[in-house]
Amino acid sequence: MREEEPVTIITVAKRAGVSKTTASDALRGSGRVSAETRATVMRVAEDLGYVPNGSARHLRRASTGTIGLHVPEVLTRSSYYMSFVFGVVERAAVNDYDVTLITSGERRARTPRVDGLVLGDPLVGDPVVERLMSARLPTVTCERFPGGRGADGVVLSPHADMVGRLLDHLRDSGARRPALIVAGDESDWAAELHQGYRRWCRANGVPTATRTVPFDAPADQVRAAARELLDARPAPDALVCGPAGAATEVLPVVRAAGREAGRDLLLASCVDTPGMALADPPITSIDLRPREAGAACAELLFDLLNGTAQPGTERVHPIELRPRASTTG
Amino acid sequence: MREEEPVTIITVAKRAGVSKTTASDALRGSGRVSAETRATVMRVAEDLGYVPNGSARHLRRASTGTIGLHVPEVLTRSSYYMSFVFGVVERAAVNDYDVTLITSGERRARTPRVDGLVLGDPLVGDPVVERLMSARLPTVTCERFPGGRGADGVVLSPHADMVGRLLDHLRDSGARRPALIVAGDESDWAAELHQGYRRWCRANGVPTATRTVPFDAPADQVRAAARELLDARPAPDALVCGPAGAATEVLPVVRAAGREAGRDLLLASCVDTPGMALADPPITSIDLRPREAGAACAELLFDLLNGTAQPGTERVHPIELRPRASTTG
Repeated sequence: MREEEPVTIITVAKRAGVSKTTASDALRGSGRVSAETRATVMRVAEDLGYVPNGSARHLRRASTGTIGLHVPEVLTRSSYYMSFVFGVVERAAVNDYDVTLITSGERRARTPRVDGLVLGDPLVGDPVVERLMSARLPTVTCERFPGGRGADGVVLSPHADMVGRLLDHLRDSGARRPALIVAGDESDWAAELHQGYRRWCRANGVPTATRTVPFDAPADQVRAAARELLDARPAPDALVCGPAGAATEVLPVVRAAGREAGRDLLLASCVDTPGMALADPPITSIDLRPREAGAACAELLFDLLNGTAQPGTERVHPIELRPRASTTG
Repeated sequence: MREEEPVTIITVAKRAGVSKTTASDALRGSGRVSAETRATVMRVAEDLGYVPNGSARHLRRASTGTIGLHVPEVLTRSSYYMSFVFGVVERAAVNDYDVTLITSGERRARTPRVDGLVLGDPLVGDPVVERLMSARLPTVTCERFPGGRGADGVVLSPHADMVGRLLDHLRDSGARRPALIVAGDESDWAAELHQGYRRWCRANGVPTATRTVPFDAPADQVRAAARELLDARPAPDALVCGPAGAATEVLPVVRAAGREAGRDLLLASCVDTPGMALADPPITSIDLRPREAGAACAELLFDLLNGTAQPGTERVHPIELRPRASTTG
């Protein structure tokens, strides 16, 4: 090739070792091209200084190299969301993308320049979520958005079934009257926990006993809820705590009520956190595998951007029960 | 004001309750205007549909509403960096900014569209850091960049002095031969730890015993380093672990060597993590207050962007010693 020869899409395709169609698809960001091939073609195009010709005005605008991420602001101190965020970041890095954490600045209407969005636990009534869900960008949510509008992709876990399994485990350990502390139905996750509990109680002929706390579950409200449940007569013989961290927060309440966790009161958490395994006694928990959940969301978003997944895709993210001394004695 | 009247800078200033100069400074993004005032003026300007006149071509380009953040990629599983990142995010949200986490995509040369950068522990030889440090964007580093080039702002902690205080504490608890596991000098933090240790040993007439491990401190290398130090004769009677998490990783090595942490071997960590307080025995640690460090970096960056801090500013971020049973018996 002489130096003066103009660089065409054919030059790029040859150098990248792909067909002209694949090269064109890769540069347009559409078509069934893998992220790897796309990156190769884009690098080659950049190296060669390829400039699309006139008809290229119709090309989709260039990639921003960035995806947007929003998680419920109230919970940025939770280990769950920290792990989730870094799962997204890790997978984005593999795809050569940065990640913009979208905060809940009140005064703002703009949407950041990103190729697509990941929303962790989108809450009904969160104005940032409402704005992002209507931004016409490819969007993946972790858990379904209960607000009506659907995302292009959803990564979801079988929370209701898992609560049923947890309650089976408590029953096998001798519990007859399990009670539940749970957040409201503004998140699909909490709604699923609540539903799984009600379903299990109905199937097992057990009366329900629940207290609802806010999604960010302030310690004082969690403790007040636990106190109310433990003061009821007949008192529960097992306590299932929905919100992350709530189970360790109720331990002092359990002691103050003259009960002993793991002996005469079984205690479980619907979110495993580093504190659960290290509590005294260690607390049986559902491991939501947050880092893997974040990675799965980012992966689905890149698959949607690459055309390797179709809008409407839902993928199941497996979660696991971790039985510990608080329910096994 | 009649509806037809054009909206001028004076209209904006009046409505925002500030002087014309302040309004102008706020919209230009320069001058000594607080983030709050700037936000108010920008909101008013937006509400009124203010369009700068011809001379406005000289205005600084519009804010991207985003700051960039990079931390050593190898450590995105560390609780230190997770907290640091969310400290930055929290402070950015207060300023109505998003945060773009800049990953180490290998194939890329672009710098994301951001108003400024925060670099946590910039490592010499990290190609992303080298690229970002030369991007001509306002930049704040947490700890100095040992690579020669200076940032516009630095948030730094007195690590060398704090190691001296920790070693004083170990001496007061009976230690005579403290050894150190530390990362190499590619980070200013590790270099400070090393320097503080050498200085204390010199001042106290104690021979040094150190082993260097990589910055991301893989568990097997940390354990091998601890084994070597414990096997030396005379053996150390105290072990100071620089990297986050290293102190809990060496506990099995200590036991295997027939020693007992907190009894015949004092053990300390230069980074407090949730695991340190929960270890058996709980491990004396330096609390680096990572969330506050992240917030301090973001705050300095916004002060630089607002002109309320001058380039070259260094701010000290206080850290704290947390004595626990591993050194107090």
